[in-house]
Parts: sequence; structure tokens; C-alpha cells
Amino acid sequence: MTLIIEPIRGIPIIGPGDVLGEILSTRAADSGWSFDDGDILVLAQKIVSKAEGRLVNLCDVVPSQQALEYAGHTEKDPRFIELVLRESQSVLRVRPGTIIVEHKLGFICANAGIDHSNVNGAWGNAEDWVLLLPEDPDRSARNIQAEILEITGKKIGVMIIDSHGRAWRSGTVGVSIGLAGVPGLVDMRGKTDMFGYQLRVTIIAAADELAAGASLVMGQANEKIPAVVVRGFPYLLRESSLAEVIRPKELDLFR
Amino acid sequence: MTLIIEPIRGIPIIGPGDVLGEILSTRAADSGWSFDDGDILVLAQKIVSKAEGRLVNLCDVVPSQQALEYAGHTEKDPRFIELVLRESQSVLRVRPGTIIVEHKLGFICANAGIDHSNVNGAWGNAEDWVLLLPEDPDRSARNIQAEILEITGKKIGVMIIDSHGRAWRSGTVGVSIGLAGVPGLVDMRGKTDMFGYQLRVTIIAAADELAAGASLVMGQANEKIPAVVVRGFPYLLRESSLAEVIRPKELDLFR
Repeated sequence: MTLIIEPIRGIPIIGPGDVLGEILSTRAADSGWSFDDGDILVLAQKIVSKAEGRLVNLCDVVPSQQALEYAGHTEKDPRFIELVLRESQSVLRVRPGTIIVEHKLGFICANAGIDHSNVNGAWGNAEDWVLLLPEDPDRSARNIQAEILEITGKKIGVMIIDSHGRAWRSGTVGVSIGLAGVPGLVDMRGKTDMFGYQLRVTIIAAADELAAGASLVMGQANEKIPAVVVRGFPYLLRESSLAEVIRPKELDLFR
Repeated sequence: MTLIIEPIRGIPIIGPGDVLGEILSTRAADSGWSFDDGDILVLAQKIVSKAEGRLVNLCDVVPSQQALEYAGHTEKDPRFIELVLRESQSVLRVRPGTIIVEHKLGFICANAGIDHSNVNGAWGNAEDWVLLLPEDPDRSARNIQAEILEITGKKIGVMIIDSHGRAWRSGTVGVSIGLAGVPGLVDMRGKTDMFGYQLRVTIIAAADELAAGASLVMGQANEKIPAVVVRGFPYLLRESSLAEVIRPKELDLFR
């Protein structure tokens, strides 16, 4: 099936309390997109976090001793590092310019996904405001899914994505951090190819494959295109959560 | 821009000596696709390897002492492990069922990308035939790009992809292993967002984002849809090679 990834244009600047399901279904309709059952809405983390008021002012943060130490190693603001530690379960690597952690949500990423850029600095010094990830991105995705069902009568999948680095490849790619309806993994074990052999690759990270494609359409100035709609996803939607995508610690060879 | 990823249907079983540029431009045309400058053709590694005759019969392989040891740890065929070692620069991890290596081509992957399944077993016992990656996937991609330019007069990008696991996330995603024209990385350093702030994410792995999206359309029975065409890639095509995507060893924190 042809996969179509379509930007939703004209999304206004999002602030705390905005109802994303409403705003996005209106903007999608204005862009000529009529939601159908099985479509997928992919959102950049940033607008979800903003709608949920996940802004923190660094002036309100008192760094711990641990944060001061890591700040020395990373040459980053100790208050920023303090927030990174609060958002994390463990610290994997610390180098000048880099802190890689296991986020409370389970995935491994730099800076616990906390963002300096692009935050609306309406109050005081914009440099002091940072944006945390949504508290529970699966729940955020489910809420938006329910809002769109309410408004349009259509049951779509919703996915929240962020950009992550990789262990051995340069550059960042879009990955899923919250899922509603979009299968994190698709298990092909036991399936055979056209010659009757077992498939070599047996578990596909379908949500992450879509996240990467959607990220491409958002580009990086993703304040401008923070949401896209997808038609032609080749797998059935079902109940899902990010947990299925996180590699269990006992199978992690590279921590 | 809307991103469209379209499967090329009806591709015959590929064998040594087949000219992929010819076959695929014919099949694309029969599917109603008219190549335009800037389109991208994405190919599953498997058909490129087959066209290049990268089949090896395990009966012809004599395992080294090292291969016998790793075969014991991994519970895999020592002859298969011997080929993995020949295709690799170094071994990163060995566990029951798993061998993760640095491929001669520079990337980290399981089994050096060698494939048991889906190989046409016309000669002798099909179980004994395995398929190595193309010898130089960048060159393969450039050759196919040149063939299509010759046939259609259009300058397209060509990318060869495979499915790789990730260090900390379950399931596999499509990644690029050979590039012609498709930028591996897009450098956004110095660019600012709509508020004038420097972007947090500064280098996008654009080829890998597209590889993941294309892999989604190929599905996993990718013998059936081993090639897709893409329109709406948001970055300029330019000369490129896989080397730009490989993280330099001195920046690798997780080896």
C-alpha cells in the first residue's frame, strides 16, 4: 500500500491548556484532510509538552551536589542537569557536552529529552525556560485519540515522537515516545517467506519506522510542522504502549 | 511537502547478473510511476546482493578456530560464523543466539548482515546457501542511479537499506547501507527556530529516516516488495556516501 505522510499546516503556537485534539482536527480539515478510521496522527513532543504546561524556569531549580558534579563534566548549566537527573532513572554516560540517561519513561536518550530551544519566552528571560517531556506520553496520546474520536467520529492512531541519537550512527532520527493504537512492535515470528523459509527479521519496530518517516516530513524546524497525518500504515491498529518498544534490561548488551 | 512512498509491484525473482536499473524502471513504469528528477528509489539489500551474485554455499566454507569458538557461544553454524568474521572488522558482543559485529563497511549489526532466508535454493540444499551484503553498497547504488539516468533521462537518488536492531529498543528498523544522491546527514547547525533560538537537534540522519519509512512499506516479506519509490523528500539530493552516517569511533560511547 502507498504510504502518505501529510503535514498539517497553520498550527498556531501552542500554550498550556490548549486542547490539541480540537486544534489539530480543525487544522487538518482546513488542510483538506478528512480523518478516516485507521489514519494515524503523529505529533512532535514539543507541542504536547507545551499544551500540558511542562515548562520549567531554571531560576526555580536548585541543583544538587550530584548535578553540580555532572555539570562540571558536561560543561552544562547545573540547574539544567538537575532537571535531567530528576527526569531520569539512571545515568549511562557523561562527557563534555553530553549526558546520556535512562529516562523515567524507560528509553535511553540525551538530556532526558529536555529542550532549551523553541520555548515561548513570554515571561522573563526566554533563556531560562526549558521544556520537559510529557509526564505520560502514552496517556497524552490516548487523550488526543479520544478527543478526535469525539469530534470526528473516527478511530485513529496517535503517536508522539521525539528525535534521538543512536549508539553507533551519526545524526538523530524520529522515534516514538508515546503510543495510542499504533503497534510498537509487529511480531512476524513463525511467518515464512515466499520460499517457505522462516523470516530472518522477525520483530519489526513498526511505530519507530513510522516515527522516522514522520520526523522527515516535520523537518527540524518542527515548530512549523509539529504534526502530520499518515494514511497507508500497513499493520492493524491495536491497543499499544511505549513499554513494548523498550528493550528489557536483561537483554541490553550495551548499557 | 507531502511524502509519498510507493511500492513497486511485480518485481521478478532476481538472480546473478540481472540489471536492476532496467528491471526496476520497467516495473515502476508498469505500476504507473514516471520518474522525475529528485525522486528516490529505495532497494532492499537482498535484491542487490542477489543481482551481484553474493550467494555463498556453506559447504564451501572451512571454519577457523575462532569461528568454532564463537559458534559454540552463539549456538550457530561454525561455517556461518566464519563468513560473519570474514565480513567483519571486529566482534562487539557474543551471546547465545547473537553475534554483533562491526561490519567491514563500518556499521554495527548482527550476523554481519548475512541472511539465511529467502535465498533461491535452486542448486542443492537450499539451507546451505546464504547471502552476503553487497561488496560496496554505495557503488551499487551509484550504478543503479546511472542505469536509471541512462534509461529515463532522470537524475534520481538511490538508497540500499537493510533492517538493523538497536542498542536499547526492541525490534528492527530500516537503515541505509548504501547511498547515491540521498544525503546521509543534513546539518542544521547555525539554523534558528521561529523565535531565533539555535535548534537543539542539529544534525538529522535524513537517509535513515527515509530508510525506516521505506522499510515500513516493504514490510518484512520484502521479497515481495523489495523496492519502493519516494516523492517529496524534503532535502536537496547531493553526492553522498554511507561513511557520513557512521559514527566515528572516537565519538562512540557504547562499543
